[in-house]
Amino acid sequence: MRQQDLIRAALKGEATLVIKNANVVNVFTEEIIHADVAICEDTVIGVGEYSCENEIDAGGAFLTPGFIDAHVHIESSMVTPPSFMKVIMPHGTTTIIADPHEIANVAGTAGVRAMYKYTDALPLRVLFMMPSCVPATPFEHSGATLFAEDMEPFLRKSRILGLGEVMDYVSTIGGAQQMLDKLRLFDGKPIDGHAPLLSGRELNAYRIAGPSTDHECSNFEEVKEKLRTGMRVLIRIGSAAKGIDEILRRVAEENLPTENIMFCTDDKHIETINREGHINCNARLAVACGIPPVKAVKMASYNAARAYGLKGVGAIAPGYKADMVLFEDLKEFKVKKVITRFGRVYDPNEEFPKPILAPEVYDSVNLPLITADSLRLAAKETMPVIEMVPEQLITKRAERKVKLDEGGAFIPADGLLKLAVIERHHATGNIGLGIVDGLNIKNGAIASTVAHDSHNLVVAGDNDRDMLLAIEALRESGGGFAVASGGIVLVRLPLPIAGLMTDAPVEEVLQQQRALLDAAKSLGADERTDPLIALSFLALPVIPEIRLTDEGLFDVTKMEFIPY
Amino acid sequence: MRQQDLIRAALKGEATLVIKNANVVNVFTEEIIHADVAICEDTVIGVGEYSCENEIDAGGAFLTPGFIDAHVHIESSMVTPPSFMKVIMPHGTTTIIADPHEIANVAGTAGVRAMYKYTDALPLRVLFMMPSCVPATPFEHSGATLFAEDMEPFLRKSRILGLGEVMDYVSTIGGAQQMLDKLRLFDGKPIDGHAPLLSGRELNAYRIAGPSTDHECSNFEEVKEKLRTGMRVLIRIGSAAKGIDEILRRVAEENLPTENIMFCTDDKHIETINREGHINCNARLAVACGIPPVKAVKMASYNAARAYGLKGVGAIAPGYKADMVLFEDLKEFKVKKVITRFGRVYDPNEEFPKPILAPEVYDSVNLPLITADSLRLAAKETMPVIEMVPEQLITKRAERKVKLDEGGAFIPADGLLKLAVIERHHATGNIGLGIVDGLNIKNGAIASTVAHDSHNLVVAGDNDRDMLLAIEALRESGGGFAVASGGIVLVRLPLPIAGLMTDAPVEEVLQQQRALLDAAKSLGADERTDPLIALSFLALPVIPEIRLTDEGLFDVTKMEFIPY
Repeated sequence: MRQQDLIRAALKGEATLVIKNANVVNVFTEEIIHADVAICEDTVIGVGEYSCENEIDAGGAFLTPGFIDAHVHIESSMVTPPSFMKVIMPHGTTTIIADPHEIANVAGTAGVRAMYKYTDALPLRVLFMMPSCVPATPFEHSGATLFAEDMEPFLRKSRILGLGEVMDYVSTIGGAQQMLDKLRLFDGKPIDGHAPLLSGRELNAYRIAGPSTDHECSNFEEVKEKLRTGMRVLIRIGSAAKGIDEILRRVAEENLPTENIMFCTDDKHIETINREGHINCNARLAVACGIPPVKAVKMASYNAARAYGLKGVGAIAPGYKADMVLFEDLKEFKVKKVITRFGRVYDPNEEFPKPILAPEVYDSVNLPLITADSLRLAAKETMPVIEMVPEQLITKRAERKVKLDEGGAFIPADGLLKLAVIERHHATGNIGLGIVDGLNIKNGAIASTVAHDSHNLVVAGDNDRDMLLAIEALRESGGGFAVASGGIVLVRLPLPIAGLMTDAPVEEVLQQQRALLDAAKSLGADERTDPLIALSFLALPVIPEIRLTDEGLFDVTKMEFIPY
Repeated sequence: MRQQDLIRAALKGEATLVIKNANVVNVFTEEIIHADVAICEDTVIGVGEYSCENEIDAGGAFLTPGFIDAHVHIESSMVTPPSFMKVIMPHGTTTIIADPHEIANVAGTAGVRAMYKYTDALPLRVLFMMPSCVPATPFEHSGATLFAEDMEPFLRKSRILGLGEVMDYVSTIGGAQQMLDKLRLFDGKPIDGHAPLLSGRELNAYRIAGPSTDHECSNFEEVKEKLRTGMRVLIRIGSAAKGIDEILRRVAEENLPTENIMFCTDDKHIETINREGHINCNARLAVACGIPPVKAVKMASYNAARAYGLKGVGAIAPGYKADMVLFEDLKEFKVKKVITRFGRVYDPNEEFPKPILAPEVYDSVNLPLITADSLRLAAKETMPVIEMVPEQLITKRAERKVKLDEGGAFIPADGLLKLAVIERHHATGNIGLGIVDGLNIKNGAIASTVAHDSHNLVVAGDNDRDMLLAIEALRESGGGFAVASGGIVLVRLPLPIAGLMTDAPVEEVLQQQRALLDAAKSLGADERTDPLIALSFLALPVIPEIRLTDEGLFDVTKMEFIPY
């Protein structure tokens, strides 16, 4: 619509949609105003008394700006953006700031472009942060490496807001040139931080280097210290949200200004979203912890829009985009209706064409011939072992006596499984082999191409035949998850897009996930820890204490490989 | 300083200046924290415990971010930026957002460039808004016309923040193409509004067109309505500040969020600044009206920095620029010390070289030969007259019997003076002639090249000889003010830079101003209204009810020229 026409429409009160009789939350004055809201195409043109042919009677429900997830990895949902939208939008989230970190680790800039294409025309507003740490560490081989020069063309894309979470704080405060180049490229734009428990002068140095947000705070004192440095704090409720209620309670009790606090999910299972909600879940908890409802709404909308420089988003006022949510109340935040960024009521049945993506996004599982010999782990009598900790992602390093065959190779036994991390992007043949305790698989193997952050193929099992079978199943499906037992692939969840996502409908994916879990459990996997998630994190060399990458067994505490 | 070195300095706590023992105002958490502040060159590297060779003991005084004047016309001070800085900086203002509207009306983009040059290396941080309305109205001839295409090169200048006050709301909500072109050019950047009493759908349309701030609010309801639309409201204390205390009291009483409220002076006489202070005067009034002191500090600093997108300004935190103020208290806001943007204590004795400016900035008074005949006002027995209102800038339109000579020309008598507005930029010979009542000059004339907004030469007197003398005095001095009587130029304040400013020291200018006033009063000028200011505004065809431009007598209410 031409600017002139919009100005004229506002002047004349000529709306294409009027929401009548709403309790409108004004984030600027923190008032709740009983009024009509006039929309012309995709823009609010006034709050007051309006009418037109196309009206929605709010019946006194609360109208808020559409909610914003300030930091999320869509790929972690295992579904593509249109499906992900269908999961979150009914909960009132109309804008997400996505960090395509996972797909970038597989397919580099082609992966980022794929996510961009997928989200171009969605009613959900999808904005991006450019992944800053690809690969996440120098101790593994990912599918791509992103240097500042690779990112430069993305600066000109309107939906790329800034630089994604800077996890590598060591390079950052150490002043490593490659990291500083990226930070300088995004100077003046939002730069997401990722600095759990960083404090004092280290935090000061990290701030000066550029990162201006953090979503890793695990206690109130950490929140306060980071706010003091001018960081924006993203309160995360992902699949886990330990300690978040305590943080919010203290924010309320100490009457801390909330203008630099906002919400995110980071990674949240679809099942959990379906059950608990999305950003409205954060708002609900905030109110339950004593934050005034209008402040909670601001944390869920305006504060994030302002922090990330989103023009015309996050408020209900003339000139602002029309995405809004009608809530039954500002306590449970139960959604009555969602108005999209196009100024229309959200329609869950609308379908979107699949975009044409670069071949490397589909053909991401590139493996050489893998044989039993490839999986042979030459061992000594006593070996370093990855000991899993129930219900947690951390692991412990243990030394254990192991069973060997005549040739001196490790034989899984007594709960010790063989673990392999196979470079799966460029068929280099790099294979890291190790031993894991705690997965408890018997007579079978589980495998995944979702393996943070490099997303190599990770497979664990108690026999080579099932392990090889699971590997071949994933080669065939272009990635995903597989459980094999007794020479049969029991269940498979194909994730053909970068080995991370599928275009399949959400319900189908959830069903397959349940089937995978059931199969893993039938092989003896511990019920307390989701074995598929546990497997996904066994290759991430940043979480203590011991991990396996395609380069070998890695001691995270000492930051060095373990020779054996 | 290289980024690497700064990061390292923060990590090691290696400061070049430490302010010890201060009560540091943290604008993010709204705490006052007793601590040291470490600065490395021009940047804060930490708040905590620090020491270095170069220390200032704050003795428990309050350390705040440097104050920000969010909207000011430097030219109105009649002194050039270095002198203006010397007036305001001792009051704790370390950043100003200047709108070089006056000099642009005289010298166009060369005028804007002159202000830019003057402020490049000052310890005062000077940022600019590009004047949007040059000329201010179509009813007069200014020195230049600025179209969007003229402004385009300025977008790339780092200190040009956005578009200056959009006074022409009629063109704006009318969707006039030339105005929309300018607004589109600055889309996404700050655009200052100027919309006294604009309300309802007109205000909505104005907002949608682009302007996002307003500094013209004269009552609390206006403030609230503008805030509701997402406008930032600048609370102005200029030379006059009627009703501002009432606004601030209501803001405090109704506990209105202040995050989108900030401070400005717009136009404030040097004498008043010397007496009352600058932005610290706004802060003082805010606290006196019940705003919590830390919120007042935020209004004076952080809120403006955020609204105008100033990175690294407006807070005391690692990575922020070092400009800060030590105040004795947060009530009277009496300044103890000012730290400049260079991280050094402000030195009032530092001198700055005058920049080399474009010739048109100096040679701005271009007049053809002006004779008694040029000033001949052919009149009828009854004539429309500009009637001044004591102590106000508005005027009334009156019809009065006048004295005529034999040839039918107006002769000043009975308190009616002759008024002339002479186009002084391009020697076009355009002269508007009229009659003014209320200046009360006897046996003399006063003249000025400061005449908002086109800054033509305006002269009033009761005889042609003194009028011509005053005109010639200004031609000679390249502009300024002059008072002539009995064939002698009594006093002259030369303003050779664009006819608006002088490089002369502030004290000299103040002295000359007083001498001008004394001279005007000796000729009988009304003591209640500063005759020089009154004269300056007689040519501004936007203030009701009747004005004189170089094109003739103008009825502001009817927006038309008055034929006679």
